[in-house]
Amino acid sequence: MSNKDRLIFVTNDDGFAAPGFQVALDIAREFGRVVAIAPATTQSGRSQAITIYDPLFLEEVRREEGLEVYSLTGTPVDCVKLAFDYMLADEKVDLVISGVNHGSNGGVNVLYSGTMGAAIEGSFYGCPSVGLSLTDHSTDADFTAAREYGRRIVASILEGSEEERRNLCLNVNVPNIPAQDIQGIKVCRQCRGVWHEDFYRHEDPRGKAYFWLKGGFCNNEPASEDTDEWALLNGYVAVVPVQVDMTDYGRMPFLQSALK
Amino acid sequence: MSNKDRLIFVTNDDGFAAPGFQVALDIAREFGRVVAIAPATTQSGRSQAITIYDPLFLEEVRREEGLEVYSLTGTPVDCVKLAFDYMLADEKVDLVISGVNHGSNGGVNVLYSGTMGAAIEGSFYGCPSVGLSLTDHSTDADFTAAREYGRRIVASILEGSEEERRNLCLNVNVPNIPAQDIQGIKVCRQCRGVWHEDFYRHEDPRGKAYFWLKGGFCNNEPASEDTDEWALLNGYVAVVPVQVDMTDYGRMPFLQSALK
Repeated sequence: MSNKDRLIFVTNDDGFAAPGFQVALDIAREFGRVVAIAPATTQSGRSQAITIYDPLFLEEVRREEGLEVYSLTGTPVDCVKLAFDYMLADEKVDLVISGVNHGSNGGVNVLYSGTMGAAIEGSFYGCPSVGLSLTDHSTDADFTAAREYGRRIVASILEGSEEERRNLCLNVNVPNIPAQDIQGIKVCRQCRGVWHEDFYRHEDPRGKAYFWLKGGFCNNEPASEDTDEWALLNGYVAVVPVQVDMTDYGRMPFLQSALK
Repeated sequence: MSNKDRLIFVTNDDGFAAPGFQVALDIAREFGRVVAIAPATTQSGRSQAITIYDPLFLEEVRREEGLEVYSLTGTPVDCVKLAFDYMLADEKVDLVISGVNHGSNGGVNVLYSGTMGAAIEGSFYGCPSVGLSLTDHSTDADFTAAREYGRRIVASILEGSEEERRNLCLNVNVPNIPAQDIQGIKVCRQCRGVWHEDFYRHEDPRGKAYFWLKGGFCNNEPASEDTDEWALLNGYVAVVPVQVDMTDYGRMPFLQSALK
């Protein structure tokens, strides 16, 4: 398939104005025509959330040859749904890129991440979806390596057979080191670990207490070399294929006997 | 362990004022002392979302012997985090109940559900967590069966060994039929299926277009008798054990070769 015929949908969770989003658009434009709908404001940590009780306002923010960009007053998943079930409902989308996220989505962050929420949602519509994240939260992060490896990974995915691409969802995390120091790409499994929150407590101007989330990630298996967290700490781009069957098959025998 | 010694945490996603939340409190109180933090407003479809860029205001809404209830201006997962990492940080929580949700969380809804987001979060803290949902969205839903089966399932779980209970997470859905017509409890796997959205488009009073999510769930395997959706359609209470490793191990060989 030539780039002329390919349609790529782009979104993110940091909002359409985030520098990382521009990097995702740049990558996407190398491979086809691009339509993008991104949240109007930051939606970090919005997971797979959908907006049920509020209307969604859509605004065109950019249009040029081969590129349309819109902002939506919703979550990343709302953006994907509006694209696939409304705006592009009569077209075939060949790829979804979500990102490039400012911050890591390794390990259990795949569950909290709006970037990955959108990528997972994209894969529900059958096409391959790539969530791209850089382990640097700052606005002026250096996306050189994310751009280079993102491009390389997208190119490889698009060369896969239709069956290999169908519903494929990738959680790609790029370590925050100079591009030339990256050791390569490592296909990994999701690291086990959890967040420990250290709530910040303060009072508003009227003396009312409020809390603010301020946590740290705890890797439960730092010595395992097949995890995404290990890969990132050791200079690799971590690629975890993601699926959505959350059934804990190993627990079934206990439950079948306990709930008889 | 006697009920006097047991500490149970309760939350939901419909907000502390929802009738289903009262049912969850009733169930919990039969098994121990109860502390509850529930969202101040509805958080349906909020998934595993966390609130990063806003302060969280906590308010006590009820206190009596063996029961404390608070509302929080955050997501269901925020409620769990504030409970485990702040309010109850020095105590051992024995069980989390999330719900009872007004509406089904079967199949892929486990990913979108704020009820299940909270239950999953609870299991991260080591204790067993039960998400309870009734397949009826209405405010005046009949929770008789949900109450009865919720109680029965909680009792069975608490009888399990410490190892069986550790990190256990259950997605329990109760069909919207009279309690006496329920066929029993069925331990199931998560049904494969997706939502197809049919966006409602309208204009605000100033002529600006807006969209509103309005979808329908599509069961991709209606004939499979081992899924939660099948169980619900056939009059069973569906219990799916949930785990959080989203790695798609089956895709690894393709990726390892494609990304070489």
